[in-house]
Amino acid sequence: MRSSGKSVHKVQFSPPRSFATSLKADLKETFFPDDPFRQFKDESPLRRTKKAIQYFLPIFEWLPKYNLRLLRYDVLSGITIASLAIPQGISYAKLANVPPILGLYSSFVPPLIYAVFGSSKDLAVGTVAAASLLLASIIEEQVSADDNPTLYLHLIFTATFVTGVFQAALGFLRLGILVDFLSHSTIVGFMGGTATIISLQQLKGMLGLSHFTTKTDVVSVMRSVFSQTSEWRWESAVVGICFLVFLLVTKQIRKTRPGLFWVSAIAPMVTVVIGILFAYLVHGEKHGIRIVGHLNRGINPLSIKDLNFESKYLPATIKAGIITGILALAEGIAIGRSFAIMKNEQIDGNKEMIAFGMMNIVGSFTSCYLTTGPFSKTAVNYNAGCKTAMSNIVMAICLMFTLLFLAPLFSYTPLVALSAIIMSAMLGLIEYEKVYHLFKVDKFDFCICMAAFLGVVFLSMDVGLMMSVGLAIVRALLYIARPTNSKLGKIPISTMYRDVEQYPGAAGVPGILILQLGSPIYFATSTYIRERISRWIEDDLRIRNSNSDDLEHVILDLGGVTSIDMTGIETLFEVKRNIERRGIKVAIANPRTEVMEKLMLSNFIDSIGKEFVFLGTEDAVETCGFMLNEAKQTNSLGGHMDTAFITDDSVRPSCQTVNEDNP
Amino acid sequence: MRSSGKSVHKVQFSPPRSFATSLKADLKETFFPDDPFRQFKDESPLRRTKKAIQYFLPIFEWLPKYNLRLLRYDVLSGITIASLAIPQGISYAKLANVPPILGLYSSFVPPLIYAVFGSSKDLAVGTVAAASLLLASIIEEQVSADDNPTLYLHLIFTATFVTGVFQAALGFLRLGILVDFLSHSTIVGFMGGTATIISLQQLKGMLGLSHFTTKTDVVSVMRSVFSQTSEWRWESAVVGICFLVFLLVTKQIRKTRPGLFWVSAIAPMVTVVIGILFAYLVHGEKHGIRIVGHLNRGINPLSIKDLNFESKYLPATIKAGIITGILALAEGIAIGRSFAIMKNEQIDGNKEMIAFGMMNIVGSFTSCYLTTGPFSKTAVNYNAGCKTAMSNIVMAICLMFTLLFLAPLFSYTPLVALSAIIMSAMLGLIEYEKVYHLFKVDKFDFCICMAAFLGVVFLSMDVGLMMSVGLAIVRALLYIARPTNSKLGKIPISTMYRDVEQYPGAAGVPGILILQLGSPIYFATSTYIRERISRWIEDDLRIRNSNSDDLEHVILDLGGVTSIDMTGIETLFEVKRNIERRGIKVAIANPRTEVMEKLMLSNFIDSIGKEFVFLGTEDAVETCGFMLNEAKQTNSLGGHMDTAFITDDSVRPSCQTVNEDNP
Repeated sequence: MRSSGKSVHKVQFSPPRSFATSLKADLKETFFPDDPFRQFKDESPLRRTKKAIQYFLPIFEWLPKYNLRLLRYDVLSGITIASLAIPQGISYAKLANVPPILGLYSSFVPPLIYAVFGSSKDLAVGTVAAASLLLASIIEEQVSADDNPTLYLHLIFTATFVTGVFQAALGFLRLGILVDFLSHSTIVGFMGGTATIISLQQLKGMLGLSHFTTKTDVVSVMRSVFSQTSEWRWESAVVGICFLVFLLVTKQIRKTRPGLFWVSAIAPMVTVVIGILFAYLVHGEKHGIRIVGHLNRGINPLSIKDLNFESKYLPATIKAGIITGILALAEGIAIGRSFAIMKNEQIDGNKEMIAFGMMNIVGSFTSCYLTTGPFSKTAVNYNAGCKTAMSNIVMAICLMFTLLFLAPLFSYTPLVALSAIIMSAMLGLIEYEKVYHLFKVDKFDFCICMAAFLGVVFLSMDVGLMMSVGLAIVRALLYIARPTNSKLGKIPISTMYRDVEQYPGAAGVPGILILQLGSPIYFATSTYIRERISRWIEDDLRIRNSNSDDLEHVILDLGGVTSIDMTGIETLFEVKRNIERRGIKVAIANPRTEVMEKLMLSNFIDSIGKEFVFLGTEDAVETCGFMLNEAKQTNSLGGHMDTAFITDDSVRPSCQTVNEDNP
Repeated sequence: MRSSGKSVHKVQFSPPRSFATSLKADLKETFFPDDPFRQFKDESPLRRTKKAIQYFLPIFEWLPKYNLRLLRYDVLSGITIASLAIPQGISYAKLANVPPILGLYSSFVPPLIYAVFGSSKDLAVGTVAAASLLLASIIEEQVSADDNPTLYLHLIFTATFVTGVFQAALGFLRLGILVDFLSHSTIVGFMGGTATIISLQQLKGMLGLSHFTTKTDVVSVMRSVFSQTSEWRWESAVVGICFLVFLLVTKQIRKTRPGLFWVSAIAPMVTVVIGILFAYLVHGEKHGIRIVGHLNRGINPLSIKDLNFESKYLPATIKAGIITGILALAEGIAIGRSFAIMKNEQIDGNKEMIAFGMMNIVGSFTSCYLTTGPFSKTAVNYNAGCKTAMSNIVMAICLMFTLLFLAPLFSYTPLVALSAIIMSAMLGLIEYEKVYHLFKVDKFDFCICMAAFLGVVFLSMDVGLMMSVGLAIVRALLYIARPTNSKLGKIPISTMYRDVEQYPGAAGVPGILILQLGSPIYFATSTYIRERISRWIEDDLRIRNSNSDDLEHVILDLGGVTSIDMTGIETLFEVKRNIERRGIKVAIANPRTEVMEKLMLSNFIDSIGKEFVFLGTEDAVETCGFMLNEAKQTNSLGGHMDTAFITDDSVRPSCQTVNEDNP
C-alpha cells in the first residue's frame, strides 16, 4: 500500500517570461500563425535571397520547372475559362453599370498580375456578380451612372484603386485576421440574398425593359418591374426563358455526370454565339430584343489619369473600396483555399491578399474594375485540369486576341442572353440546404445568416453585410461574457473528473467541491464567475448539510482558462476571500502558462500557498482528501492509518480495480 | 495483468437537448446568472407573494425586524454622512455648473427612494465628482450654463431622467452584463484622469478666478489658469492651501489610525464652518475670497414640468444620460458589492440598477441631478457602523432640516473651501500603485488604463472612456480570434497529459500526436486553428521521420472547447479530411455537452466513428496505443500479447509505480 496520500507531481513555478518574450510570442501567434519564415532558417544568404524572391513572387518558383506537358493542360483550361470569361465579363459589367467592354478588359490585365504574385495554382481571376452590384450600389448613391457616366466610371476606377491598396495593405500588415470575421454563415446569407436580388433584377433584361431602378432592395425592384407591365416584351421573355432552360439543363448535366463539366463551361459562350446569330438574323432589335451595343476594338486604355480623389467623392469611394475589397478577399481566399486543400497544397492568406491588391491596383490604372477569384470560373479551371497559374496567362492571351480582333462581333450580344447567363449562375448560389443545416445545428448561426439574407433583400447590400457581421461579433462577445463553468464529479473506476451535468454518473467527493472555470477570466466575465461560484458553494453547502457532510476544500480547475486579465485576478482574490471566510480552503489545479505567470506576478499563488497548486484535479483531490483524513484522525484521536485511507482509496482506485472491471 | 488495452469509460452520446431546453439554459446563464427566483420554489402562493414583494422592495424585508438597538447605530452614521453630504453636495454642484442648492436637494429625495428599493445596507447615496463634471461637459456642448442657465438646468434634469429610465430598463431587462464591460483597468484610468482634471480645475477656486474655460482637457485648463496671472489673488490661495493641508492631514490620520475615521469624516464640515466664520468675520469678499452666494430656504421644488424633450437637445441629453448612467452604475454597484463582501452579504446587481434608476427618475422630478453611491460617503457610512438603509433616511431627515432652516447660513461658504474639499477628495483617487501593479502584471490592461487616463486628460472625458472600452473589446475579440492551442505530452509517472511547452518534461507518445484545442472554435478562429494544426502535424512528421517513428493517430483534446459554431464544425471536418489524407487516424477526447450536441447533429461524430470518441486523453491514448500495437503484431506475424503491451504500460503506469516514487 502507499505510504502517503501525497503522490504529487511537480507544478512548474518557472519565473515568468520577460515582457519582450511573451509579447513576441503573442504577436507571432496573432499575425504569423503560419510562420512563413520557417523555411528561411539555416540557409546560406544566397539561397535565402532566392527563397525570399520565390516567396514574394511565386512565379519564380514554378516557372523554372515548367515544361511542355504541363503547358498542354494549362492551354486547354485557359481556353475553357476564356470562353466563360467573355460572356460573364460582359454580363457582370452590366451589373456594375459600366461599359460592357470593361468586363473584357478586366479579364486581360489582372490575370497576368495574379500569375506573377498569386500562390494558388487553381484560381481563375475575373469579376464577380455580388461585388459588382455592391460597388455600383454604393457609388450610385453619389453619382448616377446614367446622368454622368464619365464621372461614375472614374469613381469606379478610384474605388478599385482603394480596394487594391486596402487589400495589399492588409496583406503586408498581416491582417488576414480581419477576413476571419466574415463567418461562413454570413457569407451563405449574403450570397443567397445577393443572388435573389440579382436574379430579380434580370427581369429587366428578360422582359426587355429600358428603365429600371438603381436601388437593390426587393421592394424597389419588384415595383420597378410591375409598374411598367405595358412595356413588357413577350419576344424577349420567350428567348430569355429558352436560354435559361438551356443553361440550367447543362448545369444539371454537370451534376449528374461530372465528366461532362465542359458542357456547362462552354454553355454561356454557346448562348452568346447563338444569341448573336439569332439577333443578327431576325433583326432582333425591331422585336424588342435589345443588344449590348458598340464595342471598341483594342486592348485596355490607360486610366491612371482618371482616378478621382476629390474630397467630395472620397467617402463613397473609400467605403465602396473597403467593403467590396473585404468581400472579394473573403470569396477569393476561401475559394483558393478550398481547391488547394483538394490537392493537398497550402495557400498563404496574407500573400494572396497582396496578390489581389496588386492586381486591383494595376487594374485600376488600366481601365479594369474590381476583380477577384470567382467560384464558378475557378471550379471550371480546376475541372479542366489546370496545373499552374499559366492557365490565367493563356486566358489573358485569348482575351487579348478577342479585344484586338473580335470585340465588335460581341456588340450584337442580346441583353436577354446575358440576363439568362447571370440568372442561371445566381440560382446556384441560393443554398437552401445549407440554411436548413444551419437551422438544425446552430440556431444562432441561422440568425446570423438570416440577418445577412433579409438585410440584403429588404434593405441594402452593405447594411445586410454589416448587420450580420455585427451580430456575429455580439455572439462572440456574449461567448466571452458567459464562459461555461461546471461542477466536476469523479467518473467511477477512473481518475477522471467530468462535468456532473454532462455525466450524471460522476460522483461528488466527500468534503471537496471541484469547480472547473471557463475561459477567459476577463473584465466582462468576472462578475458572472464570482456569482456562479458563490451560488455553487451555497447549493453545495445546503446539500451537504442535509447529508451531515462538511465542505472543507474547494478546488478550482483552471485547466481550461487560457487567459486572465487584471479584473479577473482581482476576482480570483475576491472569490478566495469569500470562500475562506466560510472556513473552506482553496486549491487550484492545472493553471496554464499565461495564467500561471500572472497569478505569480500578482502574488495570488503565494496567497493560497504553493502547496495548494496542483498539476491536475486528481492530485488536488488526493492531497486534499489526505489532509481531510489527517484532520479527522487528529480529531478522533485514535484512528488508524488504514482507516484513514479508505476515503482516499475510494477517491483514487488502484489500477487493479480498473482492470478487473474491464476484462 | 489486464487482458485488453481498452479500459474505456463510456462517453455520453445522449440525444441533443431540444432547442427550447438549450435556449432556456443559455438565456438563464446570460441574464439570470444569480438565479433570483430560486428562493420562491416550493412555497405556498401567499408566502410567495410576500417574498416577491420583499424581493422587489427590500425595505419590507428589513423594516419589520428593525429595532431600537439598530436605530442607535444608524442615527449616528446617518448624521455623520449628512455632515459630509452638505459640503460635498455644494462642491459637486459647482462642478456640474448647477446652483449649489441642487447639491443639497440631491441628498434629500434620492436617499429616501434608495432606502425603499436598494438592497445594499452600507451604500450612502449622493452626487459624485466625475459624473457631475462629465454631465456638465456633455450638456455644455449644446447650451452654455452662463448664457442660458435656465435651459441648461432643465437639460440637466432631463439627462438625469434619461439616466434613471436607462438604469431601470437595464435592471428590468437584466442587462447588468453591459456594466461588466467597464473593466477595472478602465475605471482606474478614468478615475485617475478625471481626478487630475478636477484637481487642476480647482485652481480656479484656489486662485479666486472668476472666468474659466468650460473645456475639460488639461491644455485648455492650464491655459485658462496661466493666461490670467494678473487676476490671481494671494489671499484666496493662502486660505485654500491651509484648508487643503488640514484636510489631507485628517486623511492621513484615518490611514494611520482607522479608529479615528470620524476626524476625516467631519473635516469637510469643519472646513466649511470655519470658512463661513472666517469669511463673515474678515469680510472675505473684499479680499478676493468669493462665496457661494444666496441659498433659498425650503425643500425641493417640483421640476417635472421642466423636463425638456425638444428634438434639438435630445441627442445631447440622451448621450449624457446614458454615459453618465453607465458610469454611475459602475461606481455604485462596484462599491455596494465591495462593502457587502466585507460583511459576507449578497448584492443583486440588477436590483441595484432598478433602485438607482428609480432614484434618478424621482430625483429628476424633484430638482435633483445625477446621484449614485459614491465611494467616500459609503466608506464613511460603513465605518460609522451603519446597520441598514435607515442611515440614508436619517441623512435625508438631517438634510431636510438643513434645507428648511439652515440653508441661508451656507451662503457664506467660501468657494476656496469647496475647492480644497474637492481637491483633497480627488487626490486620493489617483492610484499610482495600482497603475504600477497593472504595468507589472498585465501590459495590455496597462494600455487600457492609460488610454482612459490620457484620453480623459488630453481629449475629453467621454472620448477617453470610449477609447478605453473600445480597446478592452478589441482585446476580447483578439482573445477570441487566437485561442491557445497546445501540443500535449505525458507527465512521467502519472496519467496526466500537459502542454509540452509549459512542462518540458512531458514526453511524446510513440505513434500518437495529442493536440489540445482552445476555445471557442468560431468563425474568427477557424482559419487559425486549421493552420496551427497543419503546422503541428508537419513539424511532428519531420521529427518522427528523423527518429524513424510513424505518426498513426492524432488525438484532438476538446476538453477546453466550450463553444463551437457552424464555421468551426466545417473547420473540424476540413482538419479531419486533411489528416486522413496523410493516412493518419483522428480521435477526439472529452467533448463538452454543447460541443458534443453540435458535433452529433452535424454528423461529425459519425464520420470519425463513435469508437474514436473518448472520455479523456488517457483513454484515447490507451486505445490508440493498443490498436497501434495490434497492427504491429499483425505485421510482424509473431508478436506475443505480452510484448504488445510494453508500449501500453509505459503509457499508463500502474499505481504501484506512482506510489514507489512518492514515499
